[in-house]
Amino acid sequence: MSKNKFNTTPQERYLEDFVEGAIHEFGPVTITEDEIVQFGKKFDPQLFHTDPNGAKETVYGGLIASGWHTCSLFMRLFVEHYLPGQASLGSPGVDELRWLKPVRPGDKLSLRITVNKVKPSSSKPDRGVLFSFCEMLNQESEVVATMMALNLVRYRDRG
Amino acid sequence: MSKNKFNTTPQERYLEDFVEGAIHEFGPVTITEDEIVQFGKKFDPQLFHTDPNGAKETVYGGLIASGWHTCSLFMRLFVEHYLPGQASLGSPGVDELRWLKPVRPGDKLSLRITVNKVKPSSSKPDRGVLFSFCEMLNQESEVVATMMALNLVRYRDRG
Repeated sequence: MSKNKFNTTPQERYLEDFVEGAIHEFGPVTITEDEIVQFGKKFDPQLFHTDPNGAKETVYGGLIASGWHTCSLFMRLFVEHYLPGQASLGSPGVDELRWLKPVRPGDKLSLRITVNKVKPSSSKPDRGVLFSFCEMLNQESEVVATMMALNLVRYRDRG
Repeated sequence: MSKNKFNTTPQERYLEDFVEGAIHEFGPVTITEDEIVQFGKKFDPQLFHTDPNGAKETVYGGLIASGWHTCSLFMRLFVEHYLPGQASLGSPGVDELRWLKPVRPGDKLSLRITVNKVKPSSSKPDRGVLFSFCEMLNQESEVVATMMALNLVRYRDRG
């Protein structure tokens, strides 16, 4: 397992450099009450995302982060630590995004990425799809969200 | 097709009320350059999301919104128009999220939801999963993103 680093330099990560089963861990990043409320009011105006007092009366028993806020923090860790130097041609999307446990004010979220598979493109021989299984964990090591991230990445020596 | 309304009142939308194939349209919401940059700096710090000038030199030819920003605006439309009155017990997640076209400053995004299917829970007879196929469209009616949203919803008369 590598923590915040790769065996290759950031400038050299082509599709060949992603080994199936390799695990990378990044973070943590702390989420605050203010950030949860700000995001909730802007994008996900439900009581348990916007009102710390009102949220106590809901099934969640208190304020929780929008699932899209959790995804956005995932992205920050992904961009800052996993993407740099990757010969990425962009992301077509994400599969099987799941929100498993509430994220609450003060939680410290880490990202664990397991390289799931590499699939050569059937039409363009210079590239393929990198499947990265991503787990967001809180400070208790509970998995709060998972997704399979897809990235188009170039091969080093093809085309 | 219904636009911004349902045949039932918002207080009455149980799982029985979602008819497979029904289409609902909401919006639009406008995305600004400032919002794109602000979101990008906070959550997705890549040049084409954070720097209007630098972005011109990238493959996108200009500033584009983070895919997670598009998702967050999707959520605002979903919460404001589709969720109200829904007997929802929360969302387990989203399948097959795809970013298909760049979203640019000034774009006006609308949400089109097609009720895909309703699947009774195998363990709890009072509820089931509502599968909603969601498309975000720009002002040219181009589909910029799609996803299958999952929501746990109660039946009216079971348990």
